[in-house]
Amino acid sequence: MAHSTYSLPEIEKQRLEFPGLANKVYFNFGGQGPLPRCAIEAIIDAHNYLQLQGPFSGKVNAWIQNKTEQLRETLALELGTTAQSIVLTENVTDGCNIVLWGLDWQKGDHILLTDCEHQGIIAIVKEIARRFGVEFSICPIKDTLNTGDPLAVIAQHLRPNTRLVVLSHLLWNTGQLLPLADIVELCHHHSPSRQRVPILVDAAQSVGCIPLNLSQLQADFYAFTGHKWLCGPAGVGGLYIDPQMFEMLRPTFIGWRGIEQDETGQPIAWKNDARRFEVATSAYPQYEGLRAAIPIHRQWGSAEGRYQRMVELSAYLWEQLSELDGVECLKNSPPQAGLVSFQVKGPLSSQQLVQALEKRGFLLRTLLNPDCVRACVHYFTLKAEIEQLVEAIKILLLNANENEG
Amino acid sequence: MAHSTYSLPEIEKQRLEFPGLANKVYFNFGGQGPLPRCAIEAIIDAHNYLQLQGPFSGKVNAWIQNKTEQLRETLALELGTTAQSIVLTENVTDGCNIVLWGLDWQKGDHILLTDCEHQGIIAIVKEIARRFGVEFSICPIKDTLNTGDPLAVIAQHLRPNTRLVVLSHLLWNTGQLLPLADIVELCHHHSPSRQRVPILVDAAQSVGCIPLNLSQLQADFYAFTGHKWLCGPAGVGGLYIDPQMFEMLRPTFIGWRGIEQDETGQPIAWKNDARRFEVATSAYPQYEGLRAAIPIHRQWGSAEGRYQRMVELSAYLWEQLSELDGVECLKNSPPQAGLVSFQVKGPLSSQQLVQALEKRGFLLRTLLNPDCVRACVHYFTLKAEIEQLVEAIKILLLNANENEG
Repeated sequence: MAHSTYSLPEIEKQRLEFPGLANKVYFNFGGQGPLPRCAIEAIIDAHNYLQLQGPFSGKVNAWIQNKTEQLRETLALELGTTAQSIVLTENVTDGCNIVLWGLDWQKGDHILLTDCEHQGIIAIVKEIARRFGVEFSICPIKDTLNTGDPLAVIAQHLRPNTRLVVLSHLLWNTGQLLPLADIVELCHHHSPSRQRVPILVDAAQSVGCIPLNLSQLQADFYAFTGHKWLCGPAGVGGLYIDPQMFEMLRPTFIGWRGIEQDETGQPIAWKNDARRFEVATSAYPQYEGLRAAIPIHRQWGSAEGRYQRMVELSAYLWEQLSELDGVECLKNSPPQAGLVSFQVKGPLSSQQLVQALEKRGFLLRTLLNPDCVRACVHYFTLKAEIEQLVEAIKILLLNANENEG
Repeated sequence: MAHSTYSLPEIEKQRLEFPGLANKVYFNFGGQGPLPRCAIEAIIDAHNYLQLQGPFSGKVNAWIQNKTEQLRETLALELGTTAQSIVLTENVTDGCNIVLWGLDWQKGDHILLTDCEHQGIIAIVKEIARRFGVEFSICPIKDTLNTGDPLAVIAQHLRPNTRLVVLSHLLWNTGQLLPLADIVELCHHHSPSRQRVPILVDAAQSVGCIPLNLSQLQADFYAFTGHKWLCGPAGVGGLYIDPQMFEMLRPTFIGWRGIEQDETGQPIAWKNDARRFEVATSAYPQYEGLRAAIPIHRQWGSAEGRYQRMVELSAYLWEQLSELDGVECLKNSPPQAGLVSFQVKGPLSSQQLVQALEKRGFLLRTLLNPDCVRACVHYFTLKAEIEQLVEAIKILLLNANENEG
């Protein structure tokens, strides 16, 4: 393992900000991150402010507008883009819906998905295919985890009628990091149709995990959530839209937040930036929670520094797991981010192992495709936690084998 | 004013549950209701529980599923229907979007709206019209506030190609209560097409304000929010769907909450009830806030009892305002619910009056169409608050007239 540039006391101090880390050994940052104390306080403060000054008043309306704009700016800074290109959403899937329903589908258009996309996204594409006579196909990325080239797979599966590519930046099941910049270059400039094929990125796992500069990356649509690696509250996410796509993408779910009205209250135009895709009243106190959570990470270290530590730790977990009898990591080299997926051989199913670990205070999750267990490390995970997890898995597998035998 | 069956001490005691009522005179329940203390506590408790047991774990997932189901049941009880017919949404507009985008529009279909619908809803209908070649028209209900018959207006404006009627149960601008049962009867059984024309109801103002039995009422779609008259937190609402419409209405914004998956994680079917229209991760602690808020009202009195007191109080406000020089209530008889809209003559605009009142601790709002001020009373409003408001308006108008003269 590479030598870490961060000392244990610094990490221990940072961990004190997260009450959820105190009573367990947590490995599910790709499911949901623990909320820092300051975020819970920001949520409570927001509720109290709303009750003190409103809940509905001129003062509160101005406050909500101001805080909402600040959240957009905080997210933009984290993602390397502008506030004007960020739609605030409820979750990742919401952002994917905005894009998928906002394009002007014609019968015979084609959508290309990878075989590692979330079931919610697949279900949207299926319904769009049904309604508009659009085709879709699924390309085999999963098998490029250890050998093969995901870029080549996508190149092979683009068709002259492909109008959208849907993929995850960091695959939620195998933890593979796709070469997104290269895929963007391919789809924008070298598609079989010789037309720019836009890309919708499911960024559920990448935001808060890997350093990002969305303006440079040039992916067209990048849908994320605040409640996983950014450690915000559930129910607040975002969607980056390349501003040059504003006119091509129509708002579908529509409401007062996205429109301009005239002096008689009639809707007359879309808002001039990404807000046109927002709908109506949201859980604003939760917005404040996310806005408070993000700087906690930035204060601790740069996105690069956090990522560096995550890959050091995930390499350590991967090494330790790889050495265990009865455990096989999906990846045969160290992971490219914080997700470490593995399979267990022997009498215990993935689900039984995760349930047994939960009883012992270790929180992980299973995935169905491929059937595996996923452990995630964040930059504030401890080496000691990794060692405890590996020891617990070792004992559980040994016991299961003994009981079996 | 009719004699109230509730004593002042009972109401004063109930008001103590709402911290937001303590430091102001609040008249904007149609904008947002104050959050009861127990709802804020439920939100904080939920955050703490999530951090203690998760935030992501088998235990937490089961808890969320259970609490979500309990919220659906709490709402169903309040609305006189079944939990299986309730979709949890973010807000009213979200519910209207689910319905409007879920119908199978054909070119030449017609949507009938009233002239009192919210700008967000009009904007959805305009975009649907543009995308699918659907027609829409707007019928003049606003002018039936004092004379005329809204049922006759709707009957006159139904066309042989009308496929949906969109209207509010309780109009947010004039406070008029539409005869919804009669309108449902008309649209379902006496449309010019001789086919059942379904009805989408914007129930932003009616839920928590008037007693409801949705199963009896037979409106097809009833979209509401928890953060207005029910006094829940912002960001949680619902949509009632008549179960016989489940198959006719397709899910549009789609996600893991609405689908069943097979053992490899592939989406294979919609959930068998209204949950099929839900998307993905929401602000679950806010769900707990709404679930805690609703019983507070029920403990105080039945929906009928609360409504009775609201109309007594709104009649009192209406009477007092009607007697003021320079004030004209839109309605020329006592209101049918908690909304009292009025216009001011003289130098002050509606907005100037509302701003001046806010400075003095009275929270109301303006509306643009018709240009007016709206004051709302809830069942826990005090007669003394009404008297204070009327006095404050009287003085502001007098001062403005003097400064003018």
